[in-house]
Amino acid sequence: MNDSAPPTTRRYKLVLAYDGSAYHGWQKQHPPDAAPLRTVQQVVEDTLIRVMRQPVELIGASRTDAGVHAEGQVAHFDAATPIPLERMADAINSRLPEDVEVRQAEAADSGFHAIQHALHKQYRYRVFNASHRPLGVRHMVYHCWHGLDLARMNDAAGRLVGTHDFEGFAAAGHGRQTTVRTVFGCQATRHGDCVDITIEGDGFLYNMVRIIAGTLVEIGRSRFEIEQIDRILETTERRLAGPTLPPNGLTLMWIRYE
Amino acid sequence: MNDSAPPTTRRYKLVLAYDGSAYHGWQKQHPPDAAPLRTVQQVVEDTLIRVMRQPVELIGASRTDAGVHAEGQVAHFDAATPIPLERMADAINSRLPEDVEVRQAEAADSGFHAIQHALHKQYRYRVFNASHRPLGVRHMVYHCWHGLDLARMNDAAGRLVGTHDFEGFAAAGHGRQTTVRTVFGCQATRHGDCVDITIEGDGFLYNMVRIIAGTLVEIGRSRFEIEQIDRILETTERRLAGPTLPPNGLTLMWIRYE
Repeated sequence: MNDSAPPTTRRYKLVLAYDGSAYHGWQKQHPPDAAPLRTVQQVVEDTLIRVMRQPVELIGASRTDAGVHAEGQVAHFDAATPIPLERMADAINSRLPEDVEVRQAEAADSGFHAIQHALHKQYRYRVFNASHRPLGVRHMVYHCWHGLDLARMNDAAGRLVGTHDFEGFAAAGHGRQTTVRTVFGCQATRHGDCVDITIEGDGFLYNMVRIIAGTLVEIGRSRFEIEQIDRILETTERRLAGPTLPPNGLTLMWIRYE
Repeated sequence: MNDSAPPTTRRYKLVLAYDGSAYHGWQKQHPPDAAPLRTVQQVVEDTLIRVMRQPVELIGASRTDAGVHAEGQVAHFDAATPIPLERMADAINSRLPEDVEVRQAEAADSGFHAIQHALHKQYRYRVFNASHRPLGVRHMVYHCWHGLDLARMNDAAGRLVGTHDFEGFAAAGHGRQTTVRTVFGCQATRHGDCVDITIEGDGFLYNMVRIIAGTLVEIGRSRFEIEQIDRILETTERRLAGPTLPPNGLTLMWIRYE
């Protein structure tokens, strides 16, 4: 491949899936006087540098927290490589650890930006809702042994749909100029021992999905009225909402672009 | 509770479930000049000693290997305790680590023996059969990315049913007087990304389920003829069977008693 013209620099888009259990979240973190933390961005970027044999900077759409998983994280990077597109995912995967995977590798427009051009995202919060322990999937779920009333949860979930100020569902110190977001859909569905809360929106505030999940669980357990959702949206008071559920139940499912 | 008559010694039967990933198998192992290994028997027995406040010896029906899981391991022990039966499982679980659980605690006849009186057992071998990685469930499955033909696997599985000499499906050095066992049922079923091989029998030789699973996967991939099963049963030659699949796909599902 070295006797032909050198490859030109192109922009690539990756769809990534990972088990976030063993990572300090997505974003690179390099504490002073210490080794960089093991983050998904770091591990994938280091792998790209070895596969592409050049400096690579990987930009990911969502800064998932420590312990949060992904089925469809999106990231972009620039590289000049002779690796054909149809072999690129395998080339990267062969050097990635077994808890992270490139699900798709595509050529993107040079102006494509994984963060700036993201339109819709879906997250899923998985509640293991049975009296027995989740055992082998305990790092992938939140365990709630109280019965959950899905009709109540879905009534409440429907009230989140629309354009609202979601500050009452955000962790303090979110640092965003506006806390108005649009939720396109929110549902709770049962699959065997699990209740999955899925939510689609144009963007999410810090801890917003985990606080919404915590609030819907309180409603499903009948510890909150269904109308608590309306009160939180009206007053934007965090103290009226439910607890921030732990990160391990959360998965970034997909991101849609223009 | 101390002002009534002292409790008498009774025999108890436990049904246990565990994620075997972090254990050196079921059976206690105490290497000379080293600490005891972390085994399920050791962890549960140590917990029983603390809960019952007396020496306890726990006898388990199946010596599951390192990395093998259980939904329905059965064990028995003797103790004199004032803990009422309906609170016993919770009392033990409150002190067990989160990867092991008592699913049932029952009073048993004084002659009940978890090993000697076991009549039927079911194991499940779970194959993750998709091109993408199993990620968060990788410690619970064996990953086979080649397409599997379930009709072929079930044709082959049906030939195992009955009373046969299963030596060809046993690891060398099994140390059993007879290698004749009765298989009551064997099926392969697809559930989403997974193909589950379930097998019921009156007992299993060392590595028998993992070797049967390895052989059925070879047949499902069309690397073996379906009739290979008949040849292995006729000749009892281990070299004709498929590989021993890794322990992490294997789960002891239940044990039935007289």
